[in-house]
Amino acid sequence: MPEYSFLGKRSPRVDALSKATGRALYTADFSLPNMIYGKTLRSPYAHAQITRLDISKARALKGVMAVITAADEVHKSPYNPPLLAKEKVVFAGQPVAVVAAINPYIAEEALGLIEVDYEVLSPVTDAIEAMKADATIIFPDIRTNLIKGNQTGRGTIPSNISWHVEYGYGDVEAGFKNADIVLENTFRTQGVHQGYLETRSTLVDVDPVGKVTIWTDSQNAFLVRELCADFLDIPIHHVRVMPVEMGGSFGGKISQPLSPLCALLARKTGRPVKMVMTREEDFVGTNPAPATLISLKVGATKEGLLTAVSAELIWDTGAFPRESCQNASVVGLSLYRIPNLSVKLYDVVTNKTPTGNYRAPGAAEAAFAVESQIDLLSRALQMDPLEFRLKNAVSEGDHATNGTVFPRIGFKETLQKMKEHIAIRSKPEGKNRGTGVACGFWFGAAGAFAAQVNVNGNGSVTLVVGSCDLTGNRTSLAQVVAEQFGISLDKITVITGDTDTAPYGDISAGSRTTRQMSTAVYRACQEVKDQLTQLASSQLGVKSNELTFAKGQFQVVGMPEKTISLEALARISIMRSDKGPITGRGSVGGNIPAPMFSVHLAEVEVDKETGKVKVLSYTAAQDVGFAINPTLIEGQMQGAVGQGIGRALMEDYVFSQGIMQNPNFLDYRMPTAVDLPFINTLLVEVRSGIEPFGVRGVGEPPMIPVLATIANAIHSATGMRLKELPMTPETVLRAIQQR
Amino acid sequence: MPEYSFLGKRSPRVDALSKATGRALYTADFSLPNMIYGKTLRSPYAHAQITRLDISKARALKGVMAVITAADEVHKSPYNPPLLAKEKVVFAGQPVAVVAAINPYIAEEALGLIEVDYEVLSPVTDAIEAMKADATIIFPDIRTNLIKGNQTGRGTIPSNISWHVEYGYGDVEAGFKNADIVLENTFRTQGVHQGYLETRSTLVDVDPVGKVTIWTDSQNAFLVRELCADFLDIPIHHVRVMPVEMGGSFGGKISQPLSPLCALLARKTGRPVKMVMTREEDFVGTNPAPATLISLKVGATKEGLLTAVSAELIWDTGAFPRESCQNASVVGLSLYRIPNLSVKLYDVVTNKTPTGNYRAPGAAEAAFAVESQIDLLSRALQMDPLEFRLKNAVSEGDHATNGTVFPRIGFKETLQKMKEHIAIRSKPEGKNRGTGVACGFWFGAAGAFAAQVNVNGNGSVTLVVGSCDLTGNRTSLAQVVAEQFGISLDKITVITGDTDTAPYGDISAGSRTTRQMSTAVYRACQEVKDQLTQLASSQLGVKSNELTFAKGQFQVVGMPEKTISLEALARISIMRSDKGPITGRGSVGGNIPAPMFSVHLAEVEVDKETGKVKVLSYTAAQDVGFAINPTLIEGQMQGAVGQGIGRALMEDYVFSQGIMQNPNFLDYRMPTAVDLPFINTLLVEVRSGIEPFGVRGVGEPPMIPVLATIANAIHSATGMRLKELPMTPETVLRAIQQR
Repeated sequence: MPEYSFLGKRSPRVDALSKATGRALYTADFSLPNMIYGKTLRSPYAHAQITRLDISKARALKGVMAVITAADEVHKSPYNPPLLAKEKVVFAGQPVAVVAAINPYIAEEALGLIEVDYEVLSPVTDAIEAMKADATIIFPDIRTNLIKGNQTGRGTIPSNISWHVEYGYGDVEAGFKNADIVLENTFRTQGVHQGYLETRSTLVDVDPVGKVTIWTDSQNAFLVRELCADFLDIPIHHVRVMPVEMGGSFGGKISQPLSPLCALLARKTGRPVKMVMTREEDFVGTNPAPATLISLKVGATKEGLLTAVSAELIWDTGAFPRESCQNASVVGLSLYRIPNLSVKLYDVVTNKTPTGNYRAPGAAEAAFAVESQIDLLSRALQMDPLEFRLKNAVSEGDHATNGTVFPRIGFKETLQKMKEHIAIRSKPEGKNRGTGVACGFWFGAAGAFAAQVNVNGNGSVTLVVGSCDLTGNRTSLAQVVAEQFGISLDKITVITGDTDTAPYGDISAGSRTTRQMSTAVYRACQEVKDQLTQLASSQLGVKSNELTFAKGQFQVVGMPEKTISLEALARISIMRSDKGPITGRGSVGGNIPAPMFSVHLAEVEVDKETGKVKVLSYTAAQDVGFAINPTLIEGQMQGAVGQGIGRALMEDYVFSQGIMQNPNFLDYRMPTAVDLPFINTLLVEVRSGIEPFGVRGVGEPPMIPVLATIANAIHSATGMRLKELPMTPETVLRAIQQR
Repeated sequence: MPEYSFLGKRSPRVDALSKATGRALYTADFSLPNMIYGKTLRSPYAHAQITRLDISKARALKGVMAVITAADEVHKSPYNPPLLAKEKVVFAGQPVAVVAAINPYIAEEALGLIEVDYEVLSPVTDAIEAMKADATIIFPDIRTNLIKGNQTGRGTIPSNISWHVEYGYGDVEAGFKNADIVLENTFRTQGVHQGYLETRSTLVDVDPVGKVTIWTDSQNAFLVRELCADFLDIPIHHVRVMPVEMGGSFGGKISQPLSPLCALLARKTGRPVKMVMTREEDFVGTNPAPATLISLKVGATKEGLLTAVSAELIWDTGAFPRESCQNASVVGLSLYRIPNLSVKLYDVVTNKTPTGNYRAPGAAEAAFAVESQIDLLSRALQMDPLEFRLKNAVSEGDHATNGTVFPRIGFKETLQKMKEHIAIRSKPEGKNRGTGVACGFWFGAAGAFAAQVNVNGNGSVTLVVGSCDLTGNRTSLAQVVAEQFGISLDKITVITGDTDTAPYGDISAGSRTTRQMSTAVYRACQEVKDQLTQLASSQLGVKSNELTFAKGQFQVVGMPEKTISLEALARISIMRSDKGPITGRGSVGGNIPAPMFSVHLAEVEVDKETGKVKVLSYTAAQDVGFAINPTLIEGQMQGAVGQGIGRALMEDYVFSQGIMQNPNFLDYRMPTAVDLPFINTLLVEVRSGIEPFGVRGVGEPPMIPVLATIANAIHSATGMRLKELPMTPETVLRAIQQR
């Protein structure tokens, strides 16, 4: 273990102050000369045929610059859902037309002048109903693929099941026969929104050459570039996407509901166009997490060893087909050695808001089922739930349900850490109180990232990255740079470039940005160090291998007075060196996994009069590989737990006839500080194989166990097993009353 | 000579359309949320003591956010002139205070509320008078340095001479004795403005951490960073300077009259501040070219060989000391072999607008004197003026007056080219018509520049530079990239990054940007090619040396069917390569000269009734080393000649009591298209030693000969030698009448 000066330290976030003081610039803060404003006409119905669409009155309104309908879409790719409804609307809130006008009021007025006749169809709003043979078919083109083992078959009958997979191994029936106990339960989770701070917005300018410049919230500027270029049918390098600050994203800003249409408006009008969603639009017009239904049958011996699992996952993906629950089944079922497994997966379309990714997509839902079942098994076998898990937990050499063999992982270490924590903690006393534990697993992604390091004339160092900073990675990457040069953090600038100025970085998603970028940045720093060493050696008149470099200073070995500083070399490089400015590049790619595990503990109190669940304390343990900046990691863990508690206890997309009934933050309640306890964090550092620091991802694992942790704690407090989210006072009270 | 596909071709400027359609964004086009507006209070007097300065009423005005006077300046460096007058004003238009208010009208009103009492002093407005022992002393601190040979002496008596140098070699007296003819004349040039399109402006934001972001017109963002950091007393990496488009600069935008003060206003108020000069402010508050006085004694044998030159250069640098005429003497006197030389240089302060650089600073003025004298010598000796010059012209191995030995240069080739052109041209017929020729020399600078090349996922290539594009170098550098990869120009993006995102680039000045950047870009492309070759070799399963690369395609030698495209490799690099994104870096530094020579020919007609000079035709020949893009080079040459004709015939800073009388484009007349003939260009390509293409600089040499060329042509047309600029109808008519 090397001794670090900057890594592993609690550096404050570089963006904290500008965000806390309201000075950071978000998309809606940007303006351009001659800018006009775009607004969206949305369907009031969840399912309807468009029989007439007349934009002539809107187009004739003074101040209206353009009206665009599906007829104007340039987009050719058949794989992405249309951004504007054509012939038929399939969810309430679906965009039907967009308008650009010289001010937002005229744009709004123009929306009212667009005449749409709808022939209302019966909406499909329940996934189980939607799967039935006699269900109303939303997309007659969908002929379900069945993927069974290695077989793929395309069906012939129209269906609302957009994706169906069956897989497994071993002999499940035999496994259940060998079990001393078999539990079968069905778990249900609700649609929830990512709940970021600012609503989706975009500003697009198209110059006379056709180059498109976009300011928008996104988890990856390069992806926005690709999506918009595809939509506009132009090459990606004709699109430039600018970085903006973001008030959270959590998977919700991978999709781009506005930018392509806004770009089309800008291209049509020759004017910069800004579009900003209202909060209601953001709820109904973006991509929340799907509602899910998981039936899980689990068998175990009385010694507490799992013998078989069969699972059926049904994902209500909303109005557009998505392949979404397969990954959920893998990350949900790979924590324990399961000798026999059978999985059936169904992604189902309904006439509800189309869904997308939300922090560890599918994993929290799967863990709600799996970790609830494990808890029930432990109870039935009267085993300590952590002991039960330790007995079955995977470790290096075991394989996940998709066959991937685990490299070095820290699941057992994390379970152990939580066990130690529980042993020494002060237990909650009193009636109606209980504790629950649950675990989470996330594979983590890798992918292509690059970094560019420039040495400034005063010896300060600037790092240019193309990846988005969602979680504070500008700060942790600054620490990586500081460590390489031994110079203080105030001499490091980390800047998110745009798609033209920055080197490529993949999507900030999948808990991978810092893990990949720390490697790329390290490599770029090595290039810079090589150049510095060369220059130092020529300046000091010695060979490179006679030099040491520490704390921003080169020194000739054995001659402590013969030194030259990074600062002096930097000055020389721009003032008189033949070689010129010192810069370095580093890239990383590939797909080496660095799996992550988390173990959570909650202590709750249930008010039996009102059904209200109060979370008394919460502790999240997680293997982070190596904590470059513990404060940032803890912040992510605390944020994720907060979100998970919201999902467990409060949040819900309430639909009636496919129309969301609560598209605002009064009726869709997210937890605030008063709803949450202080969230303790325990960092476990089992180095991954990711060079040079052994970091793992962080962002997603702390969301995964929360739903089950709270459910398990409620069981502990009340003896009641809740299998449906959210566990609001009403549902808890109803369960109490029904018992 | 390699055969090029993209280099040497007439690619259209990438920025042409957005500028021509008014869509390009200049500084004043940028806005930020909560932005406020800055205005400057300027001295109405050229020379006065400030006896009272009371800002209390201005500060009390509602809507005023800050008022700053010299008392608030943080600036510590004694070497730069103060941005706000302290105790004393030394030129009319000198900033005394700046105000920031919530709108420009309130800011303007606040200026009127600032109470300043002046004790008016007698202004020093003539350089010759200023040099006299009994002159009013502007800066009592100036004790003239005398630099004579290698001796440096600091004087004891206060003086308006801020810089005095004497140098030379050989025996001038003997040289004149050996001459068959000696001519002595004094030439006078006037103050002229660079006359760029948009007035100086700036927008500055300071975030809560103190990071300063600046949008401003500048020839070098990194220099603005340095100036503002110095002024604000913060490290350079706490300042970020953003690129903007510019409507020309010509040396005028090296200084930053607004940005430091605007940054101070922004820091004080915590709000973004915008300042935009009026045209009048731009004339009196920026840095025009100095008025000059050159006395030149030249001796030659009757065979036409120069024997000796003695020169006295007096530069009226305006209100602040500058060392400005030394370079003028070098570039003015180094075109010909001068066996004996004596030079006296005086930079003199006066109470006039402080001066700065204007396209080939000093060189055009020096050439006006030198090339007029050469013309007079040729006439006296009845020699063809080009033949005279060919006889004396320097070539490789000769040395400049500063001792620098010329590498390979193309002066004689350019003279020859003009000779050939004259031989075949159609001569102007008619009365009062005449032709003139003159030459120019510019050393050209080098300096530190870097480039960053990123390969996009679709095989397009983005080049990131930190240097400003004043002359179209984004286009020529795109050609360099296209040539390296053999891909078409529409696949190349060249982007000017800001000081945080871009690698360092030195000032775009001194005719060096394309010459240095073409090397840096070439090197960056080589790094990229190396990585592409590695990836291609692993993809095709062959060794690197078995591959050829042409037209964006790798091919295995001898196996024409075994290929992989740049596009495919680019996709692999971001989708599945372990090495990740492909990027490359290139730097260049040092100070290798690539001297440039130009030879001009003008044909004029003089209206003897009105004195009006009409330029009938104009031809500019120049050694450009290698013309990466002939169209852009010709454009620069034509633009410079246009400016030179303005200086020769029209433009003039008219002062009365040190107050400029014509600070607007009606009274300060610049040439328009109707004043100019079509300007022919002749490109000579004598490769310089600059790897890999042998380019030379372009921007400055075509300005240098114009003043003398026109004067020589007027002599030819009228028999009159005009030695003072501008040669307006009034002065020409007066000369005619006086004869």
